[in-house]
Amino acid sequence: MELVNKGKTKDVYKLENGNYLLKFKDDVTGEDGVFDPGANKVGLTIEGAGRSALKLSKYFFELLEEKGIPTHYIDADVEEATMTVKPAKVFGNGLEMICRYRAVGSFLRRYGMYAKEGQPLDALVEVTIKDDERNDPLITEDALCMLGILTHDEYETLKELTIKISNIVKEELAKKGIELYDIKLEFGKIGDEIVLIDEISGGNMRAYKDGKYIEPLELEKLILND
Amino acid sequence: MELVNKGKTKDVYKLENGNYLLKFKDDVTGEDGVFDPGANKVGLTIEGAGRSALKLSKYFFELLEEKGIPTHYIDADVEEATMTVKPAKVFGNGLEMICRYRAVGSFLRRYGMYAKEGQPLDALVEVTIKDDERNDPLITEDALCMLGILTHDEYETLKELTIKISNIVKEELAKKGIELYDIKLEFGKIGDEIVLIDEISGGNMRAYKDGKYIEPLELEKLILND
Repeated sequence: MELVNKGKTKDVYKLENGNYLLKFKDDVTGEDGVFDPGANKVGLTIEGAGRSALKLSKYFFELLEEKGIPTHYIDADVEEATMTVKPAKVFGNGLEMICRYRAVGSFLRRYGMYAKEGQPLDALVEVTIKDDERNDPLITEDALCMLGILTHDEYETLKELTIKISNIVKEELAKKGIELYDIKLEFGKIGDEIVLIDEISGGNMRAYKDGKYIEPLELEKLILND
Repeated sequence: MELVNKGKTKDVYKLENGNYLLKFKDDVTGEDGVFDPGANKVGLTIEGAGRSALKLSKYFFELLEEKGIPTHYIDADVEEATMTVKPAKVFGNGLEMICRYRAVGSFLRRYGMYAKEGQPLDALVEVTIKDDERNDPLITEDALCMLGILTHDEYETLKELTIKISNIVKEELAKKGIELYDIKLEFGKIGDEIVLIDEISGGNMRAYKDGKYIEPLELEKLILND
C-alpha cells in the first residue's frame, strides 16, 4: 500500500486493486487553535476528530448511496479511521462546490455591502479553486470553462448534484433540530460519471442549533446519537 | 448646479433639467504613484489626464451611438473637461463589467494556478461589485440575482452588451496596431433600458502595443492621432 498524498486532514494510500484508502487524521482546519471549516490550513489537533469525521462521512455516504447519488465510497473501518474509495479524477487540481443557505463566512466577507450576517440564501452554489497559495479564489462558470477546467454540461451537473446532496444533508440535520448554514463538497469523475468524493463531516459544513454554531465532534454526536 | 458626488476621477453635478454633468479630474487610479487601471484609489495626479480621458470617452461614446449602442452620453465640452449625460440608475451601488482578452491583472492573481500571464481569453466576462472597502470582490450571476442586484435577464443583457462594446473598442484599437487586453465598463438603467455609463478611456482598460503596456495619455494620442 503506497502513500500517494499527505493531505491536511487525511492521508491517501493506493491499494493494489486500484482503489484508494483514506486515513482520517485528528488534524482539523482552523486558525490560531480555533476550528474554522472555511480555513485553509491545519489549525489544531483534536483527539478523536478523524474517527468522528469518518463516522459522519460513512453515515452520509451510505445515505446518499441509498438515494441513488453516485459517490466514490466503498466502505469504512471506523476503528482504523480508514475509508476505502474508488479512484476518481478531480477537475483541474480540485474544486470546492459550496452550497449556502445563510450568509456567513467568505460570502459575508465578500458581499457584506449587500448581505446581512445570517441572511437566508436559497441553496446558492459557488465554486472555489483549491489553491492554498491564493486562498481558494472564487471562480465563475464562464472562467471554469474558458480555462478548460470544466465543460458547461459538467458545471450544470455539478451544480445540480451539489444542491441535491446539500438538501439531503440539510434535511437530515433538521431532523435533529440543527440548521445547515453552508456546506462544501468535492467531486471527481469515474469514467464519464461525476461522483461525490472526499468526506461529509462537520469539517465541511457550518451547522447551528438554537442560533449557536456546533463544533464538528458535537455535530457528529448529535446526528448519530452516540 | 448641485454637486451630488465627488468621485475618484470625476465629480458629478446635477443640472436643472434633470441631466448630470461629469467633471473629469486629473486624478488617476493607482498605487504608490504608479498608474494602475485595476486599482481602487487615486494614486497620482497627471496634468491633462481629465481632458485626455474625456476626449477618448467622447470619441468612443459617439462611435457607440452610431452603432446603435444605448449610452448615457449627451455631449462633451473638452475645454471645460465636462460631459453631459442622461440620468441613469446603477445596479445596487454599482457594478463593474470586465471583458478579458488576455490573462492579466486580478484574473491572473486569482487563477495563476491555471492561467499563464498574457494567455488569450475569448472575451471572458466577469462582474465585480464596486466596494472599495472589500476591494471590489468578484461575484457570480447566481449571487447577483439572489442578492437582488440583478435579474437573470438583466445579467444576460449586461453580458451581451459588455462583449459587443468591448469588441468595438478592441477593433478600434486594432486599427492603430494596439491590442486590448481587458476593459471594464459600467452600466445603468434609464427607465427599462440598460445603457453604458461612466467613461471609456485609458483608465478603464489595459492596452498593449508590441507587447508593451500603453499609459492612458499615450493611448489617447495614439487613437486620436493628435
